[in-house]
Amino acid sequence: MNKKSLPTLYWEDNCLYLLDQRYLPKKTEYRCCSSYQDAVDSIREMSVRGAPAIGITAAYGMVAAASEAIVNNYNSAEIKNFLQQASEALIKARPTAVNLVWAVRRMEKVFDRVQDNQPEEIFNKLLQEAKIIHEEDINNNRMIGTNGAELIPPKASILTHCNAGALATGGYGTALGVIRAAVEDGKDIHVFIGETRPLLQGSRITAFELYHDDISATLITDSMAGYLMSRNMVDMVVVGADRIAANGDTANKIGTYTLAVLANHHEIPFYVAAPISTIDIEIDSGDNIKIEKRSATEVTHFGGIATAPEGITVFNPAFDITPARLITAIITERGVVCKPEREKIEKLFS
Amino acid sequence: MNKKSLPTLYWEDNCLYLLDQRYLPKKTEYRCCSSYQDAVDSIREMSVRGAPAIGITAAYGMVAAASEAIVNNYNSAEIKNFLQQASEALIKARPTAVNLVWAVRRMEKVFDRVQDNQPEEIFNKLLQEAKIIHEEDINNNRMIGTNGAELIPPKASILTHCNAGALATGGYGTALGVIRAAVEDGKDIHVFIGETRPLLQGSRITAFELYHDDISATLITDSMAGYLMSRNMVDMVVVGADRIAANGDTANKIGTYTLAVLANHHEIPFYVAAPISTIDIEIDSGDNIKIEKRSATEVTHFGGIATAPEGITVFNPAFDITPARLITAIITERGVVCKPEREKIEKLFS
Repeated sequence: MNKKSLPTLYWEDNCLYLLDQRYLPKKTEYRCCSSYQDAVDSIREMSVRGAPAIGITAAYGMVAAASEAIVNNYNSAEIKNFLQQASEALIKARPTAVNLVWAVRRMEKVFDRVQDNQPEEIFNKLLQEAKIIHEEDINNNRMIGTNGAELIPPKASILTHCNAGALATGGYGTALGVIRAAVEDGKDIHVFIGETRPLLQGSRITAFELYHDDISATLITDSMAGYLMSRNMVDMVVVGADRIAANGDTANKIGTYTLAVLANHHEIPFYVAAPISTIDIEIDSGDNIKIEKRSATEVTHFGGIATAPEGITVFNPAFDITPARLITAIITERGVVCKPEREKIEKLFS
Repeated sequence: MNKKSLPTLYWEDNCLYLLDQRYLPKKTEYRCCSSYQDAVDSIREMSVRGAPAIGITAAYGMVAAASEAIVNNYNSAEIKNFLQQASEALIKARPTAVNLVWAVRRMEKVFDRVQDNQPEEIFNKLLQEAKIIHEEDINNNRMIGTNGAELIPPKASILTHCNAGALATGGYGTALGVIRAAVEDGKDIHVFIGETRPLLQGSRITAFELYHDDISATLITDSMAGYLMSRNMVDMVVVGADRIAANGDTANKIGTYTLAVLANHHEIPFYVAAPISTIDIEIDSGDNIKIEKRSATEVTHFGGIATAPEGITVFNPAFDITPARLITAIITERGVVCKPEREKIEKLFS
């Protein structure tokens, strides 16, 4: 970010430092993860969130595991066991974002290649790979931005949801990457930010990012999106993704599907911006994407204060599925897939 | 309500007592209005909300003005001036709910008839009229309930928004009146409650009402409605109204229009339940309904805690307009208007 450079995460002194997003915008505090379990907890407790950022955190989580193995003087077999334990725990930390599995699998492949080396060498190779994953992500975001910005007219009012920004990724952002690239191109962009209940990633994180980057933005509650569209105040919707099925169906933060239906009704383009690592080619359609259900207190309480009567039943799915037919295009680092469907998506991988 | 009888409002000892809904569900505290200005403040600060309840409050506000006139020993001309002042202030308290104007005009008519009488007689007649407005509202709600319940199958999952319950009216409720009547008919009803950001009338008030009435209910964030519909978890939407134009276009709590678009997309019936007093036959269409914009802090703060970066721009319309074409039926005390349009609505008044 411009005024204050606040990286999403970085590795230093054998520790993964994560900007603890639970406390934004009030506090900018880094959480130190010196063990893989710290990384698991940080993902589960949403100190870090956003599919790409979760993937990078998991990669560094594997590095933390290698570091622990060295400290504990594990032998070769013990290291292998311990890293397997770490990868299983990291993959289980949250179920919907596919980048988590993707990053851990990449780290496992590196480990497979170097497992007979000295522990320090294993550690160095894993750290190198995690840093590559991290850098690749930033570069991919810049490419997503470049590709996506082409879809944006010289003057546009863009609605986004949740946070698919620098803080959801290694840096720069996917949906916000597209917006940043359009602004860098000198376009006249105004962003409407859906606050994104229950955890308010829109108001707490996206508003924080855009405000600090001096990008013109207005905060709304999620319920206002339809009204804005009915008043011709929105030219397009741009969101990120947590997992994209082979047919283009997209899991993203709860509320995304509602925006897609609204955009469709108002004939407004609806764009999904995500790296290739978010596409799960193994999954046929959105029907097979597991939707995480989170705790009732996220909905019934705020800052420890009850906002609903005690004992009320709550349904709290963290994501929803937007079918491909409601998506105008998926913007990736390898290009824009208009009217997404299986064949076009498969081509990205060839 | 069943377990604990908590009237929305009542007149006692020269004072209008309002259940102060700002503090629900945490505190059940009554706010005493001994002057018309207290009533104005209570409406503006949303100690009382819901179009019918605002109307009744305004009626009692006129009674409070008459009571003040007596205490101050005003002469006939002074009383007239003072009551006019009161009616103007009450009408201006909030702009969207038409019941406010409707109730004040009814009280003015009574005053016009009795203005040459003794102050005590004026007061008594105004109090009598306010009580009639209050009782009529409860009876109307029961009729709305009876009429609406006929639209509900033996087993139904109903989504509602904001609070159109006992606490939005003189008692029983409009949208919740329909739900209550269906439950009283022995139907198997489950209610999904949209929490209704920014002021959480759904989680704070509707959840409170239904939970206390032992009506099966689940709380969701507003952003989850689309997901529920996509999973066939909602059979119909029932909401209240703040002002209905002559053509059936309906102003209601922000987020209502989004639900109507979603219901339309999923081919789910979308019902508006409201008394005739909510219909503003003078207003041609929704385009002419004034939408109140409220303060940014309703969106950026919760319980005094900032949830967004300081200085971020906010757009906070309190209502939106659902066009008649998205409304399956308007349920009134005089009957159900299916596919609402001007001619059918005019017939309600003949």
